[in-house]
Amino acid sequence: MRPAGALPFLQCLSTLSHVRTVAAVRRYFQMSGSAPTCTVSQRKSIYVEALSHHVAHLTERERTLLDRLYGGLTGGHRASLAESITLVETQHPRKKELAQVLLQRVLAFRREQERLNGGKPVAFRVGLSGPPGAGKSSFIEVLGKTLTGKEHRVSVLAVDPSSCTTGGSLLGDKTRMPELSRDMKAFVRPSPSLGTLGGVTRTTSEAIVLCEGAGYDIIMVETVGVGQSEFAVADMVDVFVLLIPPAGGDELQGIKRGIIEKADLVLVTKSDGDLVVPARRIQSEYTSALKLLRKKSNRWRPKVLRVSSQTGQGIQELWDVMLQFRDGALLSGDLQARRQEQQKVWLWNLIQEHALSHFREHPAVRTGLAEMERGVAQGDISPGLAADLLLRAYRSP
Amino acid sequence: MRPAGALPFLQCLSTLSHVRTVAAVRRYFQMSGSAPTCTVSQRKSIYVEALSHHVAHLTERERTLLDRLYGGLTGGHRASLAESITLVETQHPRKKELAQVLLQRVLAFRREQERLNGGKPVAFRVGLSGPPGAGKSSFIEVLGKTLTGKEHRVSVLAVDPSSCTTGGSLLGDKTRMPELSRDMKAFVRPSPSLGTLGGVTRTTSEAIVLCEGAGYDIIMVETVGVGQSEFAVADMVDVFVLLIPPAGGDELQGIKRGIIEKADLVLVTKSDGDLVVPARRIQSEYTSALKLLRKKSNRWRPKVLRVSSQTGQGIQELWDVMLQFRDGALLSGDLQARRQEQQKVWLWNLIQEHALSHFREHPAVRTGLAEMERGVAQGDISPGLAADLLLRAYRSP
Repeated sequence: MRPAGALPFLQCLSTLSHVRTVAAVRRYFQMSGSAPTCTVSQRKSIYVEALSHHVAHLTERERTLLDRLYGGLTGGHRASLAESITLVETQHPRKKELAQVLLQRVLAFRREQERLNGGKPVAFRVGLSGPPGAGKSSFIEVLGKTLTGKEHRVSVLAVDPSSCTTGGSLLGDKTRMPELSRDMKAFVRPSPSLGTLGGVTRTTSEAIVLCEGAGYDIIMVETVGVGQSEFAVADMVDVFVLLIPPAGGDELQGIKRGIIEKADLVLVTKSDGDLVVPARRIQSEYTSALKLLRKKSNRWRPKVLRVSSQTGQGIQELWDVMLQFRDGALLSGDLQARRQEQQKVWLWNLIQEHALSHFREHPAVRTGLAEMERGVAQGDISPGLAADLLLRAYRSP
Repeated sequence: MRPAGALPFLQCLSTLSHVRTVAAVRRYFQMSGSAPTCTVSQRKSIYVEALSHHVAHLTERERTLLDRLYGGLTGGHRASLAESITLVETQHPRKKELAQVLLQRVLAFRREQERLNGGKPVAFRVGLSGPPGAGKSSFIEVLGKTLTGKEHRVSVLAVDPSSCTTGGSLLGDKTRMPELSRDMKAFVRPSPSLGTLGGVTRTTSEAIVLCEGAGYDIIMVETVGVGQSEFAVADMVDVFVLLIPPAGGDELQGIKRGIIEKADLVLVTKSDGDLVVPARRIQSEYTSALKLLRKKSNRWRPKVLRVSSQTGQGIQELWDVMLQFRDGALLSGDLQARRQEQQKVWLWNLIQEHALSHFREHPAVRTGLAEMERGVAQGDISPGLAADLLLRAYRSP
């Protein structure tokens, strides 16, 4: 029982302008002498109360905006969801803070929905990845339509780090999935177009929360373009599916190293017409190869299936296998444990990215870094000594 | 041409006591307004001159110690090499600084040796890894003896993160390789027994430099125990060899996820007697599986070979393949490029490890971290907001 721990935390959450937040956070951390240890019910009330504090410090216009977005989103309106995701993607400092207020409210709402759902997650998160030419868009279109036909509400999000440099993906997402984009039970979100991989990942993970708050029960997250996003996606979903075209060696070089071992399911796509035979061969090759790779879980052996987006063959079977995976993971508690782990990993990724950029931006480090890196690469100075010298410069006030 | 850049760098390298170094580094970084851009010859002279400055600031006893170690080591004396590695492994602050002086001298010596060798590396670094029961020790013993028989000088180093927690590996390395330990052309170094994985990795990487300075032209680095060391070893060698026993599924679960794709060569061990048949099967399975995995290099397709440490079969063929790999990588420049990349990765790993521990040790962060992690895992607060709050607390002075 540490009532002193709750109050400063509320203060730090409720005062949202940057300067005030810094002061409040410092006050909070300084006031509580050790790590606060409060009970679950106490912790819950901290977050719930924090919301009302947030609201108290907002301007009238901000309050109206957030109420409108929250109401619209939890009411299931696509326009409000789209506007909320845009708010989460913003680079504007004050709007970023507003986005966090909204997100906290949606998190609380989702927690309540989960409670009503017997503690079970309100949505199933499906990650999809594969090399260029694997037919991801057509597959998502067909699977998405099948699911909305079963009264599911489906949203499709994309992680596209190539857009970080080019400023946008080659094709608009609406063009890639024309049918699903018109479907009222689906929500197709164009990829965020700015930021680092960490930034885009954060945005996508927060968009998942918003989609779930808006009542979507299937969230598909796909990688778009060529980049490092495969691992990021694998780390934010319940089931990770790797799509492989029925092609030979060189075409498969687009598959990221190590990603096969992250897959819960491997799908050989385009298994129709002349391609059925090569698809069967690829299926049996991957089935053998997966036996040699380390299992992700003791309870699930990754499966390799064949599908055709053109004929629809294999889609229903795939969905049955995915449900079988989900139900098993729910029953064993693996799914919940995986999500908890993912949240922590995500926290630490963000901290790491920021801590390193803080290091790089330090004036003394910035001055010497290039020279040190060159010396290290040339073998003139050991990496250990170079790191020591840079870290000492960084730590000195 | 920035002569102002060289002088403060010399100062920072030459004043080695901790306080003086911090001040000197700060002065150095503050004095040079931007990243120094000097020519190669200038940079070289900085490091060469730095050595004489080092020496000028040493006490008489320290100077004598370093001269003795440097002389003994470059003269190829095993005892001096062993003592030098012990110095590199030390936790004592002043001795750590002395170790860096020695290391810089050996680095300069090695650079000179490389110049005399036509710019080619003076040693071939071989990484060896595999699950428990793969027979690493017996294999290293046989390969090592074969190589000393060909007038090579062989040193064996180990990375053993399990010893980080237990304080020592189960079996002493001398016991594991009795023949090689007695061989005058070989140097078998017991695993370092203290420190984090990053620390042990650094120590091993610096020990490689010392072994090369001592004239060993084959450096084998093996993983000992079960841990995260496989990737660390793969990142410090020219060729990475994965050893696999001729065993079925479950016994292979000791193989780290993603490590197969790091392998330049896969060796199926114990291919003798009754095990020849299963070894052949494993060989063909891995040959197929490797085709599906992404290639590390466009110029080298990983090979799967069978060896027997008992009969010696396959050892000569393996060595031929390794030389073929090395010569190809030397000719194409891949080997040199890989080493440069490794040095930079190593620098950044050290910086990352220290930057994160600096973050964790910050008083404000330490107070709030546990609560934030719990809130994030429970879904009460978004990882993004938790990271923002912690990072603001960290950055505030």
